[in-house]
Amino acid sequence: MKLEKGFIQVYTGNGKGKSTAAIGQAIRAAGHGLRTLIVQFMKEYPYGEVETLNKLSEFITIEQYCGDDFVLKKTLPPQSELDKVKKAFKRIESAFQHGEYDLVILDEICVSIYFKLVETSAVIELIQKKPEHIELIMTGRYCPQEIIEIADLVTEMKEVKHYYSEGVLARKGIES
Amino acid sequence: MKLEKGFIQVYTGNGKGKSTAAIGQAIRAAGHGLRTLIVQFMKEYPYGEVETLNKLSEFITIEQYCGDDFVLKKTLPPQSELDKVKKAFKRIESAFQHGEYDLVILDEICVSIYFKLVETSAVIELIQKKPEHIELIMTGRYCPQEIIEIADLVTEMKEVKHYYSEGVLARKGIES
Repeated sequence: MKLEKGFIQVYTGNGKGKSTAAIGQAIRAAGHGLRTLIVQFMKEYPYGEVETLNKLSEFITIEQYCGDDFVLKKTLPPQSELDKVKKAFKRIESAFQHGEYDLVILDEICVSIYFKLVETSAVIELIQKKPEHIELIMTGRYCPQEIIEIADLVTEMKEVKHYYSEGVLARKGIES
Repeated sequence: MKLEKGFIQVYTGNGKGKSTAAIGQAIRAAGHGLRTLIVQFMKEYPYGEVETLNKLSEFITIEQYCGDDFVLKKTLPPQSELDKVKKAFKRIESAFQHGEYDLVILDEICVSIYFKLVETSAVIELIQKKPEHIELIMTGRYCPQEIIEIADLVTEMKEVKHYYSEGVLARKGIES
């Protein structure tokens, strides 16, 4: 099966469920034989999903491209991280050209813009290269208005209540 | 690995990404060896995720318990559907007791309350039986305030923009 038309989806907002919604979308798509490339930004430390998705490698490819250490250090991203993002963008362009994937997920791309790993204009340029039949899904807080404008579907994950605010730390298997 | 403490999560709202976020959560948890039971309500017709998740049966069990035909017919749920929901609740209680799962997902349980397949009070009674170490995740539009109050984490998936409103129909691999 192929998608007749691929859309542009965005999951943004301060609530839980953005990356997991994108992963769940890949799982659903795989059930219909669709293939997904997941490119994760700012997640060099492997999250639980990586190991599981590697078992589904016939349908889902997941790759990490850059870290987020500089955020804790409160510095601008170093050149080494910027280079990794450039490499990721080349990978995505190549996936757009070669047509082996039906869905392409850019996990945490919106946060990457916010933390100056990449400019909004470069992401928009990339989006414009998306072929008709590929579904492009972007996740992360702080999605810029320019991207919301060109997206077809935008969901804001809004935090109504969160246990973080009660002092619960991120838990393995749930948050990472 | 076991969860030290399991919380109660709710994904509600009119936006896309509620069920997929719950599925993605199960995928992430599986990467850390946690086991998930997904009980789907009002989804008798198998969604794409079922086939994919069946390949991960070591960690994830997914079961469907009732249909949604009566919604289209604009009638109250027939006894046959109510019976299926009762069966589902027994299954969930048993999963709570036996401790073979670390996460339990009640997919579309909130919509099931809205369409009178089950009363809010019965769901609250079930929630109260959740053992300490199990994470309970509930999805679906129209989550009643009483459940929001006892949940630890509530995310509202808010529709900012949706291609449905431009006449795009549900697509296999994306919406089902």
